[in-house]
Amino acid sequence: MRFEVTILGSSSATPIYNRNPTSQVLNINERLYLVDCGEGTQQQMLRFDIRGSRIDHIFISHLHGDHYLGLIGFLSSLHLNGRKKSLKLFGPPHLMEIIELQFKYSETILQYEILFYPTNPKSPNLILENDDVMVETIPLDHRIDCTGFIFREKKRLRKLIKEEVERIGVPVEYFTALKKGKDYTDNQGKVYPNDTLTIDSAEPRAYAYCSDTKYNESYFAQIKNADLLYHEATFMHNMLDRANETHHTTALQAAEIAIKVNAKKLLIGHFSARYKTLDELLAEAQSVFPDTALAIEGRTFLI
Amino acid sequence: MRFEVTILGSSSATPIYNRNPTSQVLNINERLYLVDCGEGTQQQMLRFDIRGSRIDHIFISHLHGDHYLGLIGFLSSLHLNGRKKSLKLFGPPHLMEIIELQFKYSETILQYEILFYPTNPKSPNLILENDDVMVETIPLDHRIDCTGFIFREKKRLRKLIKEEVERIGVPVEYFTALKKGKDYTDNQGKVYPNDTLTIDSAEPRAYAYCSDTKYNESYFAQIKNADLLYHEATFMHNMLDRANETHHTTALQAAEIAIKVNAKKLLIGHFSARYKTLDELLAEAQSVFPDTALAIEGRTFLI
Repeated sequence: MRFEVTILGSSSATPIYNRNPTSQVLNINERLYLVDCGEGTQQQMLRFDIRGSRIDHIFISHLHGDHYLGLIGFLSSLHLNGRKKSLKLFGPPHLMEIIELQFKYSETILQYEILFYPTNPKSPNLILENDDVMVETIPLDHRIDCTGFIFREKKRLRKLIKEEVERIGVPVEYFTALKKGKDYTDNQGKVYPNDTLTIDSAEPRAYAYCSDTKYNESYFAQIKNADLLYHEATFMHNMLDRANETHHTTALQAAEIAIKVNAKKLLIGHFSARYKTLDELLAEAQSVFPDTALAIEGRTFLI
Repeated sequence: MRFEVTILGSSSATPIYNRNPTSQVLNINERLYLVDCGEGTQQQMLRFDIRGSRIDHIFISHLHGDHYLGLIGFLSSLHLNGRKKSLKLFGPPHLMEIIELQFKYSETILQYEILFYPTNPKSPNLILENDDVMVETIPLDHRIDCTGFIFREKKRLRKLIKEEVERIGVPVEYFTALKKGKDYTDNQGKVYPNDTLTIDSAEPRAYAYCSDTKYNESYFAQIKNADLLYHEATFMHNMLDRANETHHTTALQAAEIAIKVNAKKLLIGHFSARYKTLDELLAEAQSVFPDTALAIEGRTFLI
């Protein structure tokens, strides 16, 4: 099953040339999920061939402009491009008030429905579950209410050992039961244990998105063993005081978190505009956690 | 005196690849004036080396997203980049409510003051006057309240004919009076008529910005004789019905307006996303008004 993330923006507070505010799009089994939507996100989609009409779920972490100012424009473009299908939006409670005010004064009556699910910044909640994925909020420690999101792949059914199933001649109508873990009993009453006919599906993968936060162990348990951990790394560690003051994380801290939570791979982003190149942020994180990559715009990371 | 406009965006309702929503920046005697501010305007400034901190006046024509959604991000970046100087903002009355709501929920307290001047969509008003320029609103005919803006250069003082003034030996303290048109009388009581000592300054130039509007003669008198007329030309004339329905103008109509109002030069913009190239819009306008140019992003037009 496809499970990957494409970076649309990785700048913090202010954009700089060629670095847009935060946004990324997940492709999970050919469904697209938009995570944060900074100014210019719809332009980034055009640049990287992401079809916005394929997005049915949007997650907004918090109400700092660099994480949501592109949302109204994107919602409006969906409308103008003829969308009729409803769209699920997850974000801070006041987000909908902001959207409604802007549509009121532009006299826009959307032709599709926005199903709005306000997030709770105080406790982790399962906010979405479908055949492919479960999404939980991650309460973070930022200047204003802020949640990350963890996308956990659903455990898939067991896989048939095709040759064995054919050799024994298991009728097709038993296949689903086998995949669900049942044993098979043939006409003569002979029992074939399930694990001789099927193998377990791959372990479900998880992608954790920690947008804006101070280093705070409170959310570590929740992101444990993530296959890919995206963590903000706004500053170098020599600016730790500034990071603490503004409730952000340093590249070194992000790497330390990756170790503590046993992440398989770390992706750092939300870079301060002061860093014109990102090599030093990457080197700092890799000095502690070698399997670190930069959230460069347009790059896709497999989970 | 420098008097020029640089195009930052020329797309209508939805952006397309390499065409951003409407925005332009005027340089009038080294002061920058921002006119409309669609999503991504601050990124466009980075792209075209426009220093946002030099902008002290912003004009917003109306509250359709493609004309103002980049404003909050831009105002926020000015704040984060340390602006202390106040900024004048001219736009529809509800604009300030939208800005305040977003800053409220991001808990942003700006370090500079926004001096807000609500525009009146019903009648033309002089909304700004300084040493260089006078700015009036142009009531337009759009689906929601919308005003264009006309920037009229102030008439400069007369210029001294240096050799003549030196030959006669006019004392320096009389220069300002001469520039203002006074005659000069020397110690012997001899009168030198002003026009023997000075020449008139150039005729003041005017730039008219007609953002979103249906063809409507009501505003033609006001934009008469503009040196440069920017007029929206969302559609080709074969889509006149659609233009009327959505309160927009066709390229042909824009050219006809340029003739009627005796514009020196026409600049067309606000192109529908349906036109992947703009040659046909340009050709249509030029068939009626040859001195037409396309509002291509990054191009600067002298007025």
